[in-house]
Order: sequence, then C-alpha cells, then structure tokens
Amino acid sequence: MYKINDNYLKLPEGYIFSTIAKQVASFKEKNPDKKVIHLGIGDITQPLAQNIINTLHEAVDEMSHIETFKGYGPEFGYEFLRDAIVKGDYKSRGIDISVEEIFVSDGINSDAGNIQEIFSVDNKIAVCDPVYPVYIDTNAMAGRTGNYNRITKRWSDVIYLPCTPDNDFVPELPKERPDIIYLCLPNNPTGSTLTKEQLQLWVDYANRIEAVIIYDAAYEAYISEDNIPHSIYECEGSKNCAIELKSFSKSAGFTGVRLGYTVVPKALKCGSVSLNALWARRHGTKYNGAPYIIQRAGAAVYSKEGREEIKKQVNYYMNNARLILKGLKLAGYSAYGGVNAPYIWWKIPKNITSWEFFYYLLENANIVGTPGIGFGPQGEGYFRLTAFGTYENTLDAMERIKKL
Amino acid sequence: MYKINDNYLKLPEGYIFSTIAKQVASFKEKNPDKKVIHLGIGDITQPLAQNIINTLHEAVDEMSHIETFKGYGPEFGYEFLRDAIVKGDYKSRGIDISVEEIFVSDGINSDAGNIQEIFSVDNKIAVCDPVYPVYIDTNAMAGRTGNYNRITKRWSDVIYLPCTPDNDFVPELPKERPDIIYLCLPNNPTGSTLTKEQLQLWVDYANRIEAVIIYDAAYEAYISEDNIPHSIYECEGSKNCAIELKSFSKSAGFTGVRLGYTVVPKALKCGSVSLNALWARRHGTKYNGAPYIIQRAGAAVYSKEGREEIKKQVNYYMNNARLILKGLKLAGYSAYGGVNAPYIWWKIPKNITSWEFFYYLLENANIVGTPGIGFGPQGEGYFRLTAFGTYENTLDAMERIKKL
Repeated sequence: MYKINDNYLKLPEGYIFSTIAKQVASFKEKNPDKKVIHLGIGDITQPLAQNIINTLHEAVDEMSHIETFKGYGPEFGYEFLRDAIVKGDYKSRGIDISVEEIFVSDGINSDAGNIQEIFSVDNKIAVCDPVYPVYIDTNAMAGRTGNYNRITKRWSDVIYLPCTPDNDFVPELPKERPDIIYLCLPNNPTGSTLTKEQLQLWVDYANRIEAVIIYDAAYEAYISEDNIPHSIYECEGSKNCAIELKSFSKSAGFTGVRLGYTVVPKALKCGSVSLNALWARRHGTKYNGAPYIIQRAGAAVYSKEGREEIKKQVNYYMNNARLILKGLKLAGYSAYGGVNAPYIWWKIPKNITSWEFFYYLLENANIVGTPGIGFGPQGEGYFRLTAFGTYENTLDAMERIKKL
Repeated sequence: MYKINDNYLKLPEGYIFSTIAKQVASFKEKNPDKKVIHLGIGDITQPLAQNIINTLHEAVDEMSHIETFKGYGPEFGYEFLRDAIVKGDYKSRGIDISVEEIFVSDGINSDAGNIQEIFSVDNKIAVCDPVYPVYIDTNAMAGRTGNYNRITKRWSDVIYLPCTPDNDFVPELPKERPDIIYLCLPNNPTGSTLTKEQLQLWVDYANRIEAVIIYDAAYEAYISEDNIPHSIYECEGSKNCAIELKSFSKSAGFTGVRLGYTVVPKALKCGSVSLNALWARRHGTKYNGAPYIIQRAGAAVYSKEGREEIKKQVNYYMNNARLILKGLKLAGYSAYGGVNAPYIWWKIPKNITSWEFFYYLLENANIVGTPGIGFGPQGEGYFRLTAFGTYENTLDAMERIKKL
C-alpha cells in the first residue's frame, strides 16, 4: 500500500493566513452591516501603475498574432527581464551579478518554499523568531525540523534566533551550528532590519562555519534609511554563501500578478557542486516559467516611467506606515517597524494572547490584523499591522484603535 | 557544513529539452541560411483565440482601477474558474467532481513535479516506458528511484511498463507491486491511449493493491475516437485511487500563458488521511496562485465562443498530425499516434540511435524532432514529431523527409 509523507501530519493545524481568512469570512457573514478594515495579510490595495498596464495590453496583443505569439519561454526567464533585473537591481548599486545567476519565477513564496529541495534532509536550519512562517513549514514538510511541540510552539530541530526589543530585533549568532540560515530583511513581521555591518557579521559567520544563507529581500523597496543593505550582495564574501530571493509583489503591486526571482551566484559551491546548477536543474525540470505577458510587465517596472510610478506607491504605503506607528504610540502602545518596512509590530497588553487580541480587535474595532504567534514563539504578545490598506481606511482604523 | 541533496547528482546530465534547445541554437548559428522547422518540443504556434485575448484585455483593465484591482487570490484558484472547470470538464460528461476538489495552478508541469511531495519517499513508482520524463526525474530528485544505470538507461527502483507496438502500446499490469502509478493518456510521446475498459483494469488493479494513480490528461482535448476516456473519473472506483492533472497549454494554446489544474477527490484517502487535505496544505503553503488575469483567460476557454475557437485550433493541429502520419507511411516508415494525440511516434531505421537520427535529420532536412531515448529505454529506435507546427511548415517538413 502506498504511504503518505507523514511529515505533513506533524504540522500544526491550519496555515495562519487561511485560518484568518476563514475567521474573517465568518465574522462578516454574522455582521453584514460592519465595515471591516483589512490590515491583516500583506496584500496591497493600489492598482497597477499605468506604465505596467500599458505594457500588459501590448503583450496581450502580441499573443493574438502568429508573428508575435509566444509559447514556452526560455527556462530561466526571458533575457529582456533578467537583463533589466541585473541592471536595475544590481549593476545600479555596483553589484556584479550576471544574467546566468538570475532565475525568474512566479513569486518569492514559491522560491522560498522550493529552495530547500536542493539541500539534503540532514541539514539544520536557523530562522529568526518571529518570522514569515513559510521557511519552517516547508522544511517541516521535508522532514528537516524534528517534532513540533504544541505547548511551546517550537520544533525540536530548529535553531530559533530571537528578535525582540531586548536585542533591538538584531539576531545574535547562535551557539549551535546551523547549516542553512534564513534571513528575511527587512523583516516580516517586525519591520526591523540590519545595518550593512550587522549583516556582514552574518555573512562572515556563514563563510566561517560553511553554512548557506537564504536571504529573503521581499521588502527591500521599503528601505528608507541609509546604511541598510538593499541586497545581501552588498556584503563582502556573500556570493560564496548566499542565495537571494526577490519579489515584485510588494515593490510593484504584483501580489495578484505573480512574479519574483532568485539569485544563485556561480561562486556558491558546496565542495565542487555548483548550487546554481542544482537550482537550474530544479527550475528547468519542475517549472515552466512565468507567463510571457507577466514577464513583460516585470520589465516595465524597470523603465523610467515605471520606476517613478512605483516609487509613488511605495511612498503611499509608507505614509500609512507612519500613520499607524504614530497612532499606536499616541494611543499609549509600544510599536516597532514601519520605517524600512510596510509592517508595524504592535506590542499588545500582557494579559491577552495574540489570537485573543485578534478576535477582540475584529469584534470591537472591526479591524483585521495578524496574531504574532503565527510568526513564531517570540511573536506571542505582539500583533502585526500592514501599511497596505488605503489611506482612508488606515486613518479610520487608527481612529477606531484610539477609541478602544 | 551544509550538505546538498545528492539525489540530484544521480540524474543523467542535461534535461532532454534543454539539450535539444542548445544543439539547435548551435546548428542555427553555424547555418544561418538554413530554414529550420521545429517539430521537437511540444510548443504550439497558433495565437490565442480572440475571445481569450478580449478577456485578457478586460482583466488587465480591472487591474488598473482601485475598485476592481485584484491582489492575492483565493489560495486554490478563483471560484469563477474552478466552477467553469467543474461544469465544463466534468459535469458536462456526467462526472461528479466538486469545486473543493479542483486546485488551479500555473501548469501541469509544476503539478506533475510537485505531486510526489505528499507521498513518502518509501514508495515505489511505476511509469510507462516511454513517457514524458518529468515523473521519473522529480521522483529521482526526491530519492525514490534508486540508482541510474548509464548503460541500460534505467533506474534501479522504478517499475517500467513497456509500451511498444508488440502490446499495441497498452501497458500490462506489472509483476512487482507499485505504490504510485503514473499514467499519461493520451500518451506523450507515443500518441497512444487506452479504451475505457483498458483503463478500468488499471483502476481496479490500483484499488486492489492500494496504489494511487497519477493520471496526466494533458492531451485529452485531442481525443477523436469514441470509447477513449477524457477523464479517469469516467471509470468506476477511480475517485478512491486517482489524482488527475490537466493543462490549458495544449487544449487552448496556453504554453506561454501558464495555467493548469489538479483534481484530488475527497474520497481519496490513505487510511484516514485525506490526500485532498495534504495537497491543499502543500498548495496553500508553497504556492500563491496563478495570476488573476490568467485565471480570467482560463475561464474564457469555457465560454461558448472560446470553445468554438479552441476546437478550430485543435482541428488545425490534428490536420497536421494526419499529414505527418500519412507522409511517414508514404515514405515507407512505420509510425504511430496522431489520431487521439498531437504526437507521432516514428519508428526509425534499425542501425541508428535516436540521438544519431536527431543530428541526421537536423543536418540533412533541417527538421528538429525529439530522440525517443529521452522518454525511456523503450524509446530507443523511435523519434517523436509534434503536430504543433504551422500547416505550411508541416507540409514542407514532410516534403523534406520524402526526399531523404
């Protein structure tokens, strides 16, 4: 008889964002008159920039003529897009990354989940705590995390790197040696980040202990302060130890468009084995590329007009972030993030769990946020709000919170 | 030190379609004056139907307004598309499949590669020989196939089901018990298929030995004969043992658009564990859905106008298939398929390998096809041609072959 992958059975019930969606749907059904404000999942609200819309229309038209129709694309993405990425995200910052090191995908979520496949099951992972849950969940599915303790909310074989106000959300080098280190910077959910010097310490550490860093830079476009690296490849020696994941979702409003990319430097080798070649094999075999019209839209992001429009969107959301941060502080709460990231990490009252607070906020202020515990054990006692709502709703939400 | 997944190192060098692409590029560079005809990879040449183009434009416009903009979609696909699939592909054939059993994806290649993740590594797979290489390759990457013998071109732990003219390309039930059985019908590359009665034998067998069938129905739209099932769920008892994979690539010209879906019946259980729930967890965690505009295009495929236009395209390609089949037979060759599938399986002369024939055909007739060995050991001695070229090129190719 066939057997299932029983690592799946070890996962705690329900993926956090699915659970939230269900709870909110149920609340709305019972309270059809209430205006619910969504500051929960990291979904954006502003429409696509006009330059991207125009490009999408052009690309759709190309698909309607035999001379310009596109079938299967090149396996790692169209050259025009990989080239725009190299120029726009790397060469412009003085970073030497080549087109052969760029792999276009349908989004950072897929790549963050799939990248672990090229590594042995016998590797120990380290993750920031709290952090976006996909790194742990996908390693758990692969059998790399040991057992889950439903009381402590911890996996037995994961090295947790606590990020709290006590250490200014800067993870310390762990005592136990990890093999694979996931860093999400700017961090989801805390909105915190590392300076270039702080990140360099991690790069040096990884090179010293021969670990690999999976660097998730999904929120890079939201960095506003100087000396915060936009790419891990700003650090010396990083091409020998780091894979970088990037997304168009949050930088260009592509959550419903689906596009991202992964950088695997040619210099990154495990003994004599090139990780670039392994990922190329995985990508080429299991994936057939992002749609041509979506890749065209991605290239439009790097045009002069595209850049200007997109900058305006980022500013729009960051204005919301400032509004939330200020509003929470005026209401007497501690709150973090919101300066280099579209997330605000809200310290909630001590006598209530983050899930209890979720229901409290939904029922009393009709606001949807994300319980901190969904991001790891150190997330308990916190609540994540996003800056991706409309300005009007964000303003309204802060008024409601003030009145609580 | 971190370790790689060394199952990757067992894979034979180079994915067949990547190798072909490189060889053809090199030939073209050396022979810029030669007109090369591509009947190699299964890529289509006809532009998208007008109804689909119109829908894409509409959906792009929606993305440009705040009121109609779409961010993250529902995790298993938009209800409008899942509903259209249920009605168009199942209820219309008297098959009772529910919306909750449909998972929308970016294409059958991803699903065919990812589906093995929900099963234990300790399962033995059976595959038709020859067949589309992704089933074996992705199971090899997961460590389920033992070792590869570079002489026999066989994996030690795979059960091969020979499909040759001797058995009319109908795989026989194997002596050794498989846990997971991959069936691709109509078959890529042989173009052969099973009658409903023949498929029912496999469903009964799977239920009897408690195996699961992964049924790849990518070419279902090309079935022209009666009594050939369009879905495995036409067979009794199949919902207890089968997962079905479907694609829009070959039915609606979506190779560059990227859309597919997987059906996991709720009745499909391994002991008390629902495979529908396992796949939901995999899909919800590692994937963020197909783009909204692409899902709208998918729904347009099921409209009255969409259906009519698409039927014309399928007929166009099947006319090419007839042309190739007739041409090869007139030239004195044996050839198979081409009646219920867009592939023609060409028996090549005995004294030449299929890779040698690839170069011979490229150099002497400037035609690109696919060496049979790329699909499994029983593929040696054969060559695959596709019907996806233009009519004019197909005609030209047959003239060239006649003159060889």
